Amino acid sequence: MPSYPYLDKINFPEDLRTLKESDLPAVCHDVREYIIDTLSDVGGHFASNLGVVELTVALHYVFQTPKDKIIWDVGHQTYPHKILTGRKKELPTVRKWMGLSGFPKREESEYDLYNTGHAGTSISQALGEACARDLMGETYKVAAVIGDASIATGMALEAMNHGGHIKPNMLVILNDNYMSISKNVGSISNYLNRIISSQVYNKGKTAFYGFLKWIPLIGPALQALAHNMETSFKHFMMRPGGLFEDLGFTYFGPIDGHDVNRVVQMLQNLSKIQGPILLHVLTQKGKGYKPAEADPIKYHGVTPFNKESGKMASADANKIGLSKIVGKTLIDLTSKDKRIAVITPAMIEGSGLREYHETYPNHTFDVGIAEQHSVAFAGAMTNGGAIPFMCIYSTFLTRALDQLVEDVSLMNLPVRFVIDRAGIVGPDGETHQGLSDLGYLAGLPNMDIMVPSSAQDIIDSLHFMKDYTDHPIAIRFPKDNGDLRELQFDTPNKVTKAKARVVSEGNDLLILSVGFMLPIAKQVAEILKKEGISASVIDLFWLRPYDQDLVHSYITKTKQFVILDESYLHAGASGYLLNEIPNTLIGKFLKTFALPLEPIHHGERNQILEHYRLTSSQIAEDLLLLLQK
Amino acid sequence: MPSYPYLDKINFPEDLRTLKESDLPAVCHDVREYIIDTLSDVGGHFASNLGVVELTVALHYVFQTPKDKIIWDVGHQTYPHKILTGRKKELPTVRKWMGLSGFPKREESEYDLYNTGHAGTSISQALGEACARDLMGETYKVAAVIGDASIATGMALEAMNHGGHIKPNMLVILNDNYMSISKNVGSISNYLNRIISSQVYNKGKTAFYGFLKWIPLIGPALQALAHNMETSFKHFMMRPGGLFEDLGFTYFGPIDGHDVNRVVQMLQNLSKIQGPILLHVLTQKGKGYKPAEADPIKYHGVTPFNKESGKMASADANKIGLSKIVGKTLIDLTSKDKRIAVITPAMIEGSGLREYHETYPNHTFDVGIAEQHSVAFAGAMTNGGAIPFMCIYSTFLTRALDQLVEDVSLMNLPVRFVIDRAGIVGPDGETHQGLSDLGYLAGLPNMDIMVPSSAQDIIDSLHFMKDYTDHPIAIRFPKDNGDLRELQFDTPNKVTKAKARVVSEGNDLLILSVGFMLPIAKQVAEILKKEGISASVIDLFWLRPYDQDLVHSYITKTKQFVILDESYLHAGASGYLLNEIPNTLIGKFLKTFALPLEPIHHGERNQILEHYRLTSSQIAEDLLLLLQK
Repeated sequence: MPSYPYLDKINFPEDLRTLKESDLPAVCHDVREYIIDTLSDVGGHFASNLGVVELTVALHYVFQTPKDKIIWDVGHQTYPHKILTGRKKELPTVRKWMGLSGFPKREESEYDLYNTGHAGTSISQALGEACARDLMGETYKVAAVIGDASIATGMALEAMNHGGHIKPNMLVILNDNYMSISKNVGSISNYLNRIISSQVYNKGKTAFYGFLKWIPLIGPALQALAHNMETSFKHFMMRPGGLFEDLGFTYFGPIDGHDVNRVVQMLQNLSKIQGPILLHVLTQKGKGYKPAEADPIKYHGVTPFNKESGKMASADANKIGLSKIVGKTLIDLTSKDKRIAVITPAMIEGSGLREYHETYPNHTFDVGIAEQHSVAFAGAMTNGGAIPFMCIYSTFLTRALDQLVEDVSLMNLPVRFVIDRAGIVGPDGETHQGLSDLGYLAGLPNMDIMVPSSAQDIIDSLHFMKDYTDHPIAIRFPKDNGDLRELQFDTPNKVTKAKARVVSEGNDLLILSVGFMLPIAKQVAEILKKEGISASVIDLFWLRPYDQDLVHSYITKTKQFVILDESYLHAGASGYLLNEIPNTLIGKFLKTFALPLEPIHHGERNQILEHYRLTSSQIAEDLLLLLQK
Repeated sequence: MPSYPYLDKINFPEDLRTLKESDLPAVCHDVREYIIDTLSDVGGHFASNLGVVELTVALHYVFQTPKDKIIWDVGHQTYPHKILTGRKKELPTVRKWMGLSGFPKREESEYDLYNTGHAGTSISQALGEACARDLMGETYKVAAVIGDASIATGMALEAMNHGGHIKPNMLVILNDNYMSISKNVGSISNYLNRIISSQVYNKGKTAFYGFLKWIPLIGPALQALAHNMETSFKHFMMRPGGLFEDLGFTYFGPIDGHDVNRVVQMLQNLSKIQGPILLHVLTQKGKGYKPAEADPIKYHGVTPFNKESGKMASADANKIGLSKIVGKTLIDLTSKDKRIAVITPAMIEGSGLREYHETYPNHTFDVGIAEQHSVAFAGAMTNGGAIPFMCIYSTFLTRALDQLVEDVSLMNLPVRFVIDRAGIVGPDGETHQGLSDLGYLAGLPNMDIMVPSSAQDIIDSLHFMKDYTDHPIAIRFPKDNGDLRELQFDTPNKVTKAKARVVSEGNDLLILSVGFMLPIAKQVAEILKKEGISASVIDLFWLRPYDQDLVHSYITKTKQFVILDESYLHAGASGYLLNEIPNTLIGKFLKTFALPLEPIHHGERNQILEHYRLTSSQIAEDLLLLLQK
């Protein structure tokens, strides 16, 4: 059994605050070891958590939490925070069904102020807290902790533009580890790197003050000038964070984020300063665990691993993630058509595009965590004759609804949207669910929508989409795998617009299956068959336009119909279909099996399906009751 | 008849480019006079167009349009552009049904690259054009023209972060007129003002070079230092746009945007420079028309006015815009509860909040054109105990869908959303329609939605919302007026959650009316009555939760039901209701009368309703046919 002598004494921040400052490095050591020991067993977000151990300890040591407020951006780096705020023992349950969330969660703790997950929200929230505090006549402290990739997100910059103008007391801690999940891109990232790498600052300062000694020798007029110069010079040379100063924040740093005592001292000093402050803290992802330091991308999120070797269990060699299938297919397509451009908002890894990026760097556009920009950018590329494939997670595309409406669909620009992680996402939980995309996509003028039901469908569809210019078009699929032994990359099947597929025949009931609900739909039909009920199953494949002839004729010839959709009931395919199905047939509608409109927590897909009675046996059971009525 | 001797010779930019540079001021004079003469007759966006006359002439003079690309941000400043690109004669039809759009429009001209309307898209689009150009091996020039308020928008900053990193050849023209529609806020705005007001630059430069002469006297070591210093000093002093340089753009300016020859010369010089460039141009809204120079906010958009006096026809004194009713009610509420905060994304004027802002400046939070930030900010204010009313146009709230999901509704934070310009917006046209809000709001966990049908309803609802903390709640209403003689501000009526109102009784048909469709619904019932068909009309008032007992009992006792909703069919209330109405009753559903899912062009509301067969007589006519079937 590993022991954590200092951590054992700490359950809440008040315990931490009874310790001497000189004990803090030992506390940090224990927290880090506890994370390594636990996550090597159970997996979870890893490298980012090792990077913020000292920062977290220092913050809870100086801030009187929970009275003072700490707001974590994104939130997958809050394991040290959870450990220090009453949830140490529960860490092994992290990201598991009914266990701790991998992100901050208000239901878990009063120390968690927001359920987070998307990047760049913390400055808005800290500013809102600060303004509410001032309006209510309170005086507590407010800090946001935000990474160097997140701070370049539009809404974070909007918040700085606002906060730097109205200037309440607030602290933004820029946790700069030189990367988001992938390697960082963007001019703000370049700027931060210049600050760090530049030695000009210290050298310059020393030389300047040496130089000032000469001033008395060269006359009073020049002394005045020199004074002005000093001000300007100091401003430039002593303010490496001029960008942030221009945005109205007082900049401090950069400081070493792994020197816990230095961070404590800095936080104490900054408490005395008025107005909005940006503290630039340098940290290292994976800090303290060698394999993670060496490859923080690999160790961003881990499955259980061997603590000594760092080795994670290797996956089934025949399995390939659906995202990687997309990446591979896009390589094939680009090899034959150089007009293709692949766009990703900071998700080269997650969207299976690493190999694509290596093969076609000039065709890869990683725009940073900038979903809004990415969509308008993609629309504009079509205007210039390129063929943009915009690869994005369902949950993040929500950021760009306005650009989908205004900058693509109203103008009917043929952007190809490849929407990954659609449906239940599993362990990431409520903030990452892809349960709304079909609803808002179906509400966009001109947008066509494909809902493939298999890995091969995705390959086939991408080939179709490449040459499809009638409309913008979206394809959506879940986080799932294909089997390499069954996939035909080189001989894709022909896709026909708006063609659905009948996969089971029966007269008592029609099941309209949307996307990857197909295996469940088929099982439901089989179970019902044993009970003497014959069901047709239609795999829609296209939601818009859907195969009206086929679907309506099957509704006509069956007694009733249901819809199976892995979406929120009120943000999925159901509303669209019910609005389209002729009123003469709609009386046959029985029910849509979908997720209720509430936060859907983390857990494995099957656990969640079961909780909401969406497994095949549960659906069949419920259908039997309904049909008996 | 006014005459425009230079403009008469120009129909397209190629005509302009045959002129001598010395003729350009006269061209500008004619363009400006033509705008003043025309708009004093027909109304339209005014002050912003007068501000960009020289810039537009210079751009079309130097750029080989349409081969070279000019992308206008927002686009209400494109009247000079339209005049110079083949649409001079049509200007009097601007913003009228079947007339010219008030914004760029691809259907009108190959010189219009994007149908715009929302702020901050142009840099993304210029970057997309530039990247597609380079991918396709083309060499044309690309420029974005963006205002000082728009450039502080998140997506514009995202685009700069991306463009400053990958550095294609492109030009961003910052059209700095010190304001959006209202007076500008934000630290970037402050920064631009510092550039302009600072005299340090020129003075500093002169003094510095004078000072350098002394250097030989003070030794070679210091010469080296001085050289370093000169570099730094120059960098700071000669680069007033350091913020943009930090973002990877080469900054030039500020230059006088009303000196057309200076702008031409600058554009010619910049053509030789590689990489992304930001040119800072100072212009004045309303330039050349004294009343508009003096009050550019009043003259942002004009109704017909007397050219000599500047006087616009005064409105009916009894009429009050629904937005102003909101502003007035919020003043009443804040007088009694100081926890209230009113949030607006740069729409103090449009959202009827001028008087509120003057009365309660500390309770007014104008966040800039930052819809995303505004929503997360509002959510955070509830966390601090404040009562935020977030006032926003329907079309702009789309920018914040992700924040509505992630930063408000999943956490059930009781933000009060006041959604103006919902429904058909009229002359602004397709990019400003408020036809989608009900669809995406109804897809948000926890969100409650009120759909009032009168001005008094709005007053009553705001009083209700103030103390409502069960859920985030939204109220939505169109651009319309109330009658001051009929409104009770001081004695609001009590609102009961989820209570609908029966406004007409009949057994043949039930009309479910959403919001301000009520007068039409009532007229339909009256027309049908004359034809022997008795119709019930239910004014829903609440969409979520709606009055299920009442609605379902009326569906039960009537033969069929229809829905009337001023939304896109597929992005409105219909899908939500059809998913909620019990399957035992849904067979009675006949039709939803709503807008089809296509761009809805500009024109008066009645013209648009008529075009889509949504007037009361057309609906009644169609219903008679349907009911006869």
